[in-house]
Amino acid sequence: MRNIVAHKSCFLLLLLLLLLLFTSQFSLAAKKTLNRDRPCKRFVLYYHDILFGGDDVANATSAAVANETGLGNFKFGKLIVFDDPMTKDNHLLSPAVARAQGFYFYDMKSDYNSWFAYTLVFNSTEHKGTLNIMGADIMAAQTRDLSIVGGTGDFFMARGIATFVTDTFQGAKYFRLKMDIKLYECY
Amino acid sequence: MRNIVAHKSCFLLLLLLLLLLFTSQFSLAAKKTLNRDRPCKRFVLYYHDILFGGDDVANATSAAVANETGLGNFKFGKLIVFDDPMTKDNHLLSPAVARAQGFYFYDMKSDYNSWFAYTLVFNSTEHKGTLNIMGADIMAAQTRDLSIVGGTGDFFMARGIATFVTDTFQGAKYFRLKMDIKLYECY
Amino acid sequence: MRNIVAHKSCFLLLLLLLLLLFTSQFSLAAKKTLNRDRPCKRFVLYYHDILFGGDDVANATSAAVANETGLGNFKFGKLIVFDDPMTKDNHLLSPAVARAQGFYFYDMKSDYNSWFAYTLVFNSTEHKGTLNIMGADIMAAQTRDLSIVGGTGDFFMARGIATFVTDTFQGAKYFRLKMDIKLYECY
Repeated sequence: MRNIVAHKSCFLLLLLLLLLLFTSQFSLAAKKTLNRDRPCKRFVLYYHDILFGGDDVANATSAAVANETGLGNFKFGKLIVFDDPMTKDNHLLSPAVARAQGFYFYDMKSDYNSWFAYTLVFNSTEHKGTLNIMGADIMAAQTRDLSIVGGTGDFFMARGIATFVTDTFQGAKYFRLKMDIKLYECY
Repeated sequence: MRNIVAHKSCFLLLLLLLLLLFTSQFSLAAKKTLNRDRPCKRFVLYYHDILFGGDDVANATSAAVANETGLGNFKFGKLIVFDDPMTKDNHLLSPAVARAQGFYFYDMKSDYNSWFAYTLVFNSTEHKGTLNIMGADIMAAQTRDLSIVGGTGDFFMARGIATFVTDTFQGAKYFRLKMDIKLYECY
Repeated sequence: MRNIVAHKSCFLLLLLLLLLLFTSQFSLAAKKTLNRDRPCKRFVLYYHDILFGGDDVANATSAAVANETGLGNFKFGKLIVFDDPMTKDNHLLSPAVARAQGFYFYDMKSDYNSWFAYTLVFNSTEHKGTLNIMGADIMAAQTRDLSIVGGTGDFFMARGIATFVTDTFQGAKYFRLKMDIKLYECY
């Protein structure tokens, strides 16, 4: 009698284990990246863009390489290449913890709207490596999400979302974006 | 005797389980994204591009920001920024279910060929979010595959393939692409 | 007595299995892509870029579509579209096993530095398909890593790292990069 009970419990445990195995396997694979509120790494950086005016080489961090096209009144097609400092707080003169290297252009005829592709280059004691980001900066939205499509070095093979918020916009000369970097795939 | 049989079956079950565990774990991880014929989400959209000619602001949806370079006779280097409507069928005047915002350029000296990077921006009751896409539009091929490298909103962290087919090409002024969007990573 | 021992070993095995299950599941999921030294596919290709000078259509493989901006003395903003041959060894005249189609631009005012986005297009008996790559080409570094953000055809849904090393730089006219292609996600 005792044997049968013991065997039964053994089999039940096995069954339970099998169940656990299959449910956990399917859900764990998804859970790894599913939860939007639980990035595996997160930090906020501020992006400072000072557009080159022709005689301010010392201060400027970006320059237009193609002019607006005349399609509408919102700079459609104007393309800017940048090498911008990224800081931990929203002060332009704070030490840069990374550089943002890439480009953006304006792409709407009825309002200001832009599109970005760039690399965050980290080269400090805290972080070495890069994050590659692209996506639409839908300026009409309070917050807008771009895709972090890859990473190298400390961010080897990372993926995630970069959420933009306009922190200040001082004409065409200087603007600042808050970038909330959330990685959902970390290795 | 009965005990030994019972134990044997218990051990056999365990062995089986172990085997199952290892084979399933390796194959399941791959199966999740392996099957090209089974995207986790799929839909077809049509891309309409009307190139700005200088006086058709109302109709135009794209504009050249850099002219062709003279390297060959196939517009090498001509770069176009676009904010194009995406429709469910191939009629230009059908309601747009998304916008395609980004750019393409011509990049071959011996034939027409182009390269795209853009974002599909969805903002309807059906879908909110974006898909980020880049890749070569190898015009000589009947169909060509670009990479969907990331997504946001309803398409959070998505990846997949966008297959282009030229639906119509009316000179430089208007062309239409069928884009078959296949996601293989959905969350 | 024998029974109890047998049951104990059965339970111990189960416990061990459970432990194995959980540790392996977590680590395997990561291990699949964690090991930087063990890409699932790896090959080295050489990239040859011959910049169009205005009268060398036959030889040139790339052309500037936007001129440098005057922000510093290192060609800031100069944007080049290319359709470059990729060879297995570092000889320009070796047969091309792929084409690199895309663009790069210079983006630093205090030194030479550039940013790339392009597609490797394979169309041989060995490989058919594409790899899409983007990232900063930090020229000051001996080696620099860019992200392989997607793939199609034989490289369906691939991701990885492309490591650049400058192989030769003959003024602005011709330069050659060694690209070490390492895929960590293969399907």
